[in-house]
This record gives sequence, C-alpha cells and structure tokens, in this order.
Amino acid sequence: MGKQQKNAISPSRAKDYPEWYQQVIKASDMAEQSPVRGCMVIKPWGYTLWENIVARMDRMFKETGVKNAYFPLFIPLNFLEKEAEHVEGFAKECAVVTHHRLEKGNDGGLVPGGRLTEPLVVRPTSETIIGDSFSKWVKSYRDLPLLINQWANVVRWEMRTRLFLRTSEFLWQEGHTAHATDTEAIERTEQMLKVYVRMVEENLAIPVIKGRKTAAERFPGAVDTLCIEAMMQDRKALQAGTSHFLGQNFAKASNIRFQTENETEEFAWTTSWGSSTRLIGGLIMTHGDDDGVIMPPRVAPAHVVLLPIFRKPDERRKVMDYVNSLADSLRDVTYAGRDLVVEVDDREIGGARGWEWIKKGIPIRAEIGPRDMAKDCVFMARRDRPHREKTAIKREAFISQLPDMLEDMQKQLFQRACGFRDQHTRNVDDQKDFYDWFTPKNPKKPEIHGGFALSHWCGDQACESKIKADLNVTIRCILLDTQIETGACICCGKPSDKRVIFAKAY
Amino acid sequence: MGKQQKNAISPSRAKDYPEWYQQVIKASDMAEQSPVRGCMVIKPWGYTLWENIVARMDRMFKETGVKNAYFPLFIPLNFLEKEAEHVEGFAKECAVVTHHRLEKGNDGGLVPGGRLTEPLVVRPTSETIIGDSFSKWVKSYRDLPLLINQWANVVRWEMRTRLFLRTSEFLWQEGHTAHATDTEAIERTEQMLKVYVRMVEENLAIPVIKGRKTAAERFPGAVDTLCIEAMMQDRKALQAGTSHFLGQNFAKASNIRFQTENETEEFAWTTSWGSSTRLIGGLIMTHGDDDGVIMPPRVAPAHVVLLPIFRKPDERRKVMDYVNSLADSLRDVTYAGRDLVVEVDDREIGGARGWEWIKKGIPIRAEIGPRDMAKDCVFMARRDRPHREKTAIKREAFISQLPDMLEDMQKQLFQRACGFRDQHTRNVDDQKDFYDWFTPKNPKKPEIHGGFALSHWCGDQACESKIKADLNVTIRCILLDTQIETGACICCGKPSDKRVIFAKAY
Repeated sequence: MGKQQKNAISPSRAKDYPEWYQQVIKASDMAEQSPVRGCMVIKPWGYTLWENIVARMDRMFKETGVKNAYFPLFIPLNFLEKEAEHVEGFAKECAVVTHHRLEKGNDGGLVPGGRLTEPLVVRPTSETIIGDSFSKWVKSYRDLPLLINQWANVVRWEMRTRLFLRTSEFLWQEGHTAHATDTEAIERTEQMLKVYVRMVEENLAIPVIKGRKTAAERFPGAVDTLCIEAMMQDRKALQAGTSHFLGQNFAKASNIRFQTENETEEFAWTTSWGSSTRLIGGLIMTHGDDDGVIMPPRVAPAHVVLLPIFRKPDERRKVMDYVNSLADSLRDVTYAGRDLVVEVDDREIGGARGWEWIKKGIPIRAEIGPRDMAKDCVFMARRDRPHREKTAIKREAFISQLPDMLEDMQKQLFQRACGFRDQHTRNVDDQKDFYDWFTPKNPKKPEIHGGFALSHWCGDQACESKIKADLNVTIRCILLDTQIETGACICCGKPSDKRVIFAKAY
Repeated sequence: MGKQQKNAISPSRAKDYPEWYQQVIKASDMAEQSPVRGCMVIKPWGYTLWENIVARMDRMFKETGVKNAYFPLFIPLNFLEKEAEHVEGFAKECAVVTHHRLEKGNDGGLVPGGRLTEPLVVRPTSETIIGDSFSKWVKSYRDLPLLINQWANVVRWEMRTRLFLRTSEFLWQEGHTAHATDTEAIERTEQMLKVYVRMVEENLAIPVIKGRKTAAERFPGAVDTLCIEAMMQDRKALQAGTSHFLGQNFAKASNIRFQTENETEEFAWTTSWGSSTRLIGGLIMTHGDDDGVIMPPRVAPAHVVLLPIFRKPDERRKVMDYVNSLADSLRDVTYAGRDLVVEVDDREIGGARGWEWIKKGIPIRAEIGPRDMAKDCVFMARRDRPHREKTAIKREAFISQLPDMLEDMQKQLFQRACGFRDQHTRNVDDQKDFYDWFTPKNPKKPEIHGGFALSHWCGDQACESKIKADLNVTIRCILLDTQIETGACICCGKPSDKRVIFAKAY
C-alpha cells in the first residue's frame, strides 16, 4: 500500500464490476466461499452487519404485531407437492435428505445408511410446513389474524453462486400471516412492503422502487407479488424484498379453514414476505467505491476506529491511555438508538492499518499521536469523503459532533444513491432507443448499459419473453406509484396505459 | 375449569412425571410436535423465551471478546471423517443429503434427482467445517486467540424424541476458539463454563453443579469435557451446557497451524462449547408445578398480564381505558435491563382466561374491574404462590413495586430449586444403599428414585459400565469444587480419592 497507489480495490468498478465486487468482499473480510459448493462463510465483520439489520427489522415487524416462531428445517416431499406451481418453482433447486445415518461401506469408508421412507427437502421456503401448523392453530375467526415470522437458514441449490447475492444456503426472514378476509390480507401484503421500504431506505440508505411483479416473475403459487427494486452501480436491478398475497391457494393446499362469525366455514387468506442476506450484497453494490465497502452508519458493525500513533516506544503508554479514555467516552454516546461501537487498533503495521479500515468501510477513522494529544485534538476522516481529506478536530467537539456526522453521512449516502439511480433511469418510448439503451457500447465491458428504462408494456407475456430473450432484460415491476398514461408497447406497439420498469437484474 | 378443579395440569407431577411434562408444554402453548419425525415447532410463547435467553447469553459471550459468525449447514462427508472418534460419535444420527433436485419418477410423482458426487451431512455440530475456516484464518500467533460463536440449527437424528429435551433438529449456540498455548485454551474452556453457570443460575434460576465428564461421557474427539448438571423435579439430571478442551486433536484434523513468536510452526489448541433449546426443557422441569410452567422473570416472554373485568357491556370502555393506561405506565418500567412486557387480555371467556396465563407461567397476573378502579387498586397474584393467593394493591404501588416483586420471585425460584436439589442429594458410601437409592419403590412410578448420589469411584471404566448396565445410572460428572477425600469405590471397593455424582439422566 505505497503512496503511489490511488485506490485500495483492484480492478476498479469501471474496469470490471463483477470482479470488483468479489475483491471488495475479500478486502473487507465480510465473507468467503466455503468448501461446500455454493455455501458461504459469513465472517464476523459481515455477520455483525447482519445482526444489526436483523435487530432493526425485527423491531419493525414486532411493532406491527408480528411474533417470531420456529418451524422444521425439513419439509416432507408430499407437503411441497400440495401446491402445484409451488413445487414446480422449487423442484430444480432442492437439497434432498434421503438417509438418516452413515454406515461402513464395502470399501471400509462411510456411506449413507438408513434410507428414509419419504425423502425430506431442506426448506427452500416454508409456506407448506408453516401452513400445516396454521391449519391446526386456526379454528375460528377469533384466531385471526395470525401474524408469524421466522428467522432461518434456507437452501436453494444454485449452480452459479456469488457471495451474498446468490448462494445455496442463505439466511433470511420469512413472514407468514393468515386472515379472515382478502382485503385484510392484501392490506398486510402492502403494509409489509412498506416496512421493507423503510428498513432499506432509512437504515441501509438504499433507495428503492415499489412495484408489482408480472405473472411471469411472481412467487410460485402467489396471486400477487409486490417487491422493492434497487439500482446497483452497474445499473442492474436488485430485488431487495418481496411481499406476496397468496389468496386462498396455500390455505386450500394446507387446509387452513376457520369458522366465521356467521358460523360458516371458510378458507383463510394468507400472505408471505421475505428478505435475506442478499441485502448485504445490495449494500455493497450501492455504496461501495474503489476503496471498498462503505457502511451506512445506522447498521455499521462499528462506527469509529481509533488509530493511535507512536513513533518512539516510550510514547506508547501515554498515547494508549489517551486513546482508551477517548474510546470509553465515545462508547457512552448514543447514535440512532444504540451505543457507539468503537474499535481501537494499536497494531504497529504502518499504512496498511488505515487502509484495512477504509476497505472495511467503517464510517469514521481517527488518528491520535503525541502532536494531536498536545493540542487535545484528533485527526479524523469520513469514509464517504476522499480518503486524503482529514480534519483536525478538538477532542470534545469530536465526541459531541459524532452523532450528527454519522447521521449526515447516512443521509449523504442515500442522496448519492438516489442521484445515481435518477441519472440512469429514463423514459424510453422508441424501440430502437430501447435496444440501444440495453446494448453495451464496449464489448469488453458487457455489464455497462443504460440502466432502468421506464417504458410502456401492453401486458402480453409474449412481449415480456421476447425482450428477455433478446436483451436479458426483464420487467422488474409494474410501479405502484404511477399515473395512468396512454402509450404504445415498447415491443409490439399495441396500446398500453402505464409504464413499467425494464432492467437487467441480479 | 370449574371450581372443583384443584390443578390445571393432569396428570400431576407425582402421578406421571413424563406425561406431566408433555401436558405442561401443550397447556403453555410453547411448542408442538411437527409432522416431520422428531422435529418440533417452537410457538411464539416458547420462541420469545428462547429469544430472551439468546439475548442475555449473547451479551455475556461478547463481553468475553467472542464474535459471532456463520458457517455452512452442510458438512462434506470427508470433513467429518477427519477426526476418527468424532465421526464415530455422530455417524449413527446424521441426516444425509444425497441429491440436489427433484425430478419426475416413473409413476409421475417426484423423486430425488441430481445425485451429489459426495454426500453432505446436515451439521450435527461444526468443529470440522469451522476448523476448515480456522485453518485459513490462522497464520501467525498474532491471529490468536480466535474467538468465534455461531447461533444455528443442528440435526441429530433421534429415534425417541421429547420436545425441547431431545429432538432431531434443535437450536443452539456453538462456540469455537483457537489458542497459541494449551494453558490459554484450558482457561477459555473454564471461562465459558463459568459463563454458562452464571447464565443458567442467574437468569433461568436453575442451580447447577460444575464438573468434568469421565472419558466414557466425553464429547467425541475432546481431551476434556466440562459440564454443568441440574436436577429436575423427578430427581434426574439434565446436562445444561458443555465446554470442551479439544487439545490439538481438531487442529491436527483440520490443519490449523500457526507461526509462533520464535518462528517455529505449531498446531493451535482449540475449544468448543455449546448450549441449546434443551435449556427450555430444563426450565420447565425445574420450576413447573401442577398448574403448568413458571417463567423466571428475567427471561419470561412477558412479565405481567392485565385482566380487565366487566360484567355489564357499558363498563367495558371505562375499564379498558383504565387498563390500557396502566399498561402504558408499566411499559415504561425497567426490570433487569429491559422494559416490562405487558399483555392485556380482554377476551370474555370467563375463568378459562386466568387459567391460561397460569399455565403459561406469566410471573404476575392482575385483575382490574370497576370495584378495583373505584379504589384505584389492582387485584394481583404471583405465579410462584398458590393460585388463590391474590392481593389488592394500589395502582401506584403496583407500578413502583413490580421490579422488586419480580426480582424476589426470581430469587425464590432459585432458592426453591436449590432446596429441592439439596434435599435429594446425599453421600452414599454403601453399595446396598446405592442400589436401593436408585431403585424405584413403586413399580408403577419407575421414574421415582433417590436423586443424586455423591459416591466414591475408583476411576475404572468397568465400574462405570456395570452401574450403567445395572441401574441405568451414569457418572454425571467429577466435581470441580470438591475436596480430596479417601474412600472406597462404590462398585468394586478399590481406593478412591474423591466423590463423583451418580444419577439417572435425560
């Protein structure tokens, strides 16, 4: 890390975005590939971020009356088969347990033994197994609404994996609710989408667009899938959360019936909604720069790192006393509902030390040496500013201004991301323009293209498929907050009454 | 639930303890059997208890410098085989994944497809898969100690299961640490045992005995297993947490090597330590009575339930206003580091309502009707006192005294459990007495026997095995806090220098 080096991550985003993403994760020490195909190891710096996301989201769920519970990891094959579209959607990516012990094989090595009468599927999602419980818990309209969430690991066998974005095992939450009326279930579907919007925009500082999936992109078995979509810095879309209105499909499959106030018997109306460790991938790709991750302060694994500087051995104790006392004072400061998390890094490894924290994306770095101490100052830098931009600030001012600095940084990150997205989103009404918008100009950088196109679509699945086949571009969503506007389908030219978002996607 | 009924749970503990246990869980609505063999569904009341246990234990771990991370659910078969004793210990109870998709079978139904080249085992514990990561993370003595914990689900295929005590899937934490010296690793093993003692005694109000497992009862692959053992109300022992010193066994199996300060290369010394949802089974069997669960206040899913009483329809609004305002005031009160959790139950279902909360074990119940309101009083009952014992108390006094009442209840529960254990623990020095102590007097109640026997043991595994074969009694542990005392082995009469704890166990 000599002075000639301009940025910590190589390649840069502009040069090779997918490789930049891998290198950023490696440099931040957030996660790594495991020896198990497609599974990841989430390291402490990445896992603490996840814990902070979980804590905030969990509180938001509970504020809406949701309670947590836990259901089995394994789903009997016949459960999955109860909903035809559902099993069809997940059959190709299921990890299947067929045996319940290991025994000595013919060559002396261990082989699977004790074959199960019925194979068990490691849950890819839990509608069917939770539906079974709901069918026992719901007897009367008095038992409704039933509002349950589960924090769990799920497995979807993936052939091409990328850390956080697409892994065979990932961590997530899945909410499942049952209601007496369709109206109430639809309201809950929309309510949870709003919770995701608030969570992702206010805490992860990622701007999102609220929309509805087309039939082709819907959750297998759902009547309606609402979603939030974010733009990454390669202008591709990332789905950051989904909320499904399941109608009575799963209630019928799982036999969730209740007695109404009028003593008739009806199937319940259900919803499900989920978000996952994928959000971390979205955070990296929204805020990261050519020096690595930038952690939004509200969910950052730590807020501040203190970097003591001592050139002579006899300075060490004096500087460390000062630094430790400062760390203690900072830990008494509250920001966004939690005590500041302060790291003290006293390793004597030269310039590499500061760079490590830049790459980890810690919001604030502060150097403290004998000269700073003499002036009762720290020499600080903000991660969202160029890394050479450092400011001397009085110790007391540093302590008292930190919450405001962090909140300013949180807002700046959000504004910057909004600006980027708006810059790369436009109405496209001409078919040639549309194809042009999504065609890379430089064949060496196949990922660079226009961004989001707001274009008219007639509603025909054939048009949707043609565009996907031609450009690998999909309808991310039909906007919820849009106005009726007359236009012509970008594919076939037939009349359309509103625009949808077309984009390449993760 | 008429007046003639004396207790809520049938059978009573005295009549049929195992069946009482099942009925208590059912009546408390904490968990239920799932349709998946041996797996449980943890319902909101049980899961909230688990969340409270997790929150407190997690804080204690972090105070000792431990950080959380997450490792894959699946373990390649060859990893498990790296440590011979380890794989031997778990081979008989492994769920094995052999396929990664479902395909149409000959009869049209779905069957496992896409056979894996190497089977994957669903983690029964993670020493080997975490060891693989450690081997990459540890290069130098500067990387040590490495202090990691994981909160996760694990699977051990069980043939005979009981909710919380023995299920095929359960939730737990597993800590894994690596150190530069054996001394440091042993210290960590002991330190984490002490964390478990504090957690279980101070928060779950369950008294425990600290000890060391005999070679026969050790964790497969460990050099030394420390444990805490508690006495249930049927006088059987429950292991409530274990901490293992693994020596260099797993470091050698996983190749965790580091460069020492003297530039030599050495294998690290590792530890692992775990506790699980089994603690909930221990809590139920320690504190439960013939009316159901009793929740220790520090981890109770909720602290207080307010039960509004209205006999005439026009009273409802007035009473509810009073009750809701009281609930708000109570929610501002802090007890043991968290805001009071207050339930308001306004269902008009007569006496069944109060009984439901008794069976759930909520620490405090308070009835409020027009007559109480007129006197600005609530009519309260403590779950650790007989259910008819109710006291009128002024609203303000109720609010201000609640934290003390809860803390008193927490202490009383612990004292009561200590008393029970001490009453059923004694030194046994004569072999006939020993056999008598463990022999049920009434063949209809095979579970009733003496309790814990503190007896001498020569150290020979043959004696340990004989007693196990004769009585189904095992050495729970060799006490850590014991004094050297000369005696004769309870089995063979050979000299022994200390007593160990013999007991029947879960």
